[in-house]
Amino acid sequence: MKALEQKIISEGKIFEGDVLKVDCFLNHQIDVAFLNEIGKEFFRLYQPEGINKILTIEASGIGVACVTALNFDPALPVVFAKKSSAKNVGANLYQSKVESYTHGRTYDVVVSKDYLKENDRVLIIDDFLAKGSALMALTDLCRQAKATVIGIGIVIEKAYQGGGALLRQQGFRIESLAKIESMNTVDGIIFANPNETNSK
Amino acid sequence: MKALEQKIISEGKIFEGDVLKVDCFLNHQIDVAFLNEIGKEFFRLYQPEGINKILTIEASGIGVACVTALNFDPALPVVFAKKSSAKNVGANLYQSKVESYTHGRTYDVVVSKDYLKENDRVLIIDDFLAKGSALMALTDLCRQAKATVIGIGIVIEKAYQGGGALLRQQGFRIESLAKIESMNTVDGIIFANPNETNSK
Repeated sequence: MKALEQKIISEGKIFEGDVLKVDCFLNHQIDVAFLNEIGKEFFRLYQPEGINKILTIEASGIGVACVTALNFDPALPVVFAKKSSAKNVGANLYQSKVESYTHGRTYDVVVSKDYLKENDRVLIIDDFLAKGSALMALTDLCRQAKATVIGIGIVIEKAYQGGGALLRQQGFRIESLAKIESMNTVDGIIFANPNETNSK
Repeated sequence: MKALEQKIISEGKIFEGDVLKVDCFLNHQIDVAFLNEIGKEFFRLYQPEGINKILTIEASGIGVACVTALNFDPALPVVFAKKSSAKNVGANLYQSKVESYTHGRTYDVVVSKDYLKENDRVLIIDDFLAKGSALMALTDLCRQAKATVIGIGIVIEKAYQGGGALLRQQGFRIESLAKIESMNTVDGIIFANPNETNSK
């Protein structure tokens, strides 16, 4: 998605330690008008697939997921996996583990068994894909529920971190709207071939 | 908002310990089509006020905030306060404290100084208002930034917990789309007079 690549170049900031800061439009401040363009693109890519539910993970996946859901007609329900077991959720849970490289810790994610079911055709949405730990947990939650993962929609994939390759090897269809081939503070960002970006 | 009160009655569950579980449509699974009706109502209530930004708090405020933002034309940017200082955010922060009664702990919330400014006319959005601790932190972040809080939009207010009264005493305009006067497992939910619910 060319407009997204341009936005990352013009508004994103690269820091040492492989940090791409896009919190001006994606994961702290959210440019909702632009997010709607992202939602339209996910709808275009996945609308023929009979999806009935979007699954994401708190917190920064929720905005993308909700705006994408609104682009379907009727709007799809969104379920967001929670990062720890809060007392409001109840014991009736699927659970999986995520290793966060950003925060240097491991945490549990949970989804209520009421909201992920055997017949669900799920589109998983998240803002970032790097090593893929969060996405592996989300696909694992779907596996536990016997739900079908129709596809994965990612805003920004750091392809060089390998998570995307691993998940594609497992047979998942991943559509990353911006796919970064390499990135550093000297050379900036190099995106993968756009023809590859939206391939099935 | 009558449709919301009906949805709380038909889909919500009350548990001992003053827990109203609405995670089937609001804060775990999200009924995005219904959320859009909520967003339309916040737009109707606040659209004449020249709002340029929506402020919320992760995680369950983000969906309501984004869908509300999309009902404005052009869509408003959303800023969500983060619950702890992640290394991606940077040191350039406003910070305040929230006491969580649900989780029995106190935590910091932060907003980057880049995304909350002196001239901002802010609509604060959240899913729940009980004792008001999260909202007091959000209004405090606005005060630090010298931004103007035009109003607060809440999906469900537990009026008997007093947070709303406290914030209204401080001069904030709060619009709660469902305002619960009392609630228990025996008598169920009693809503406040609808004429009061949307008063200024």
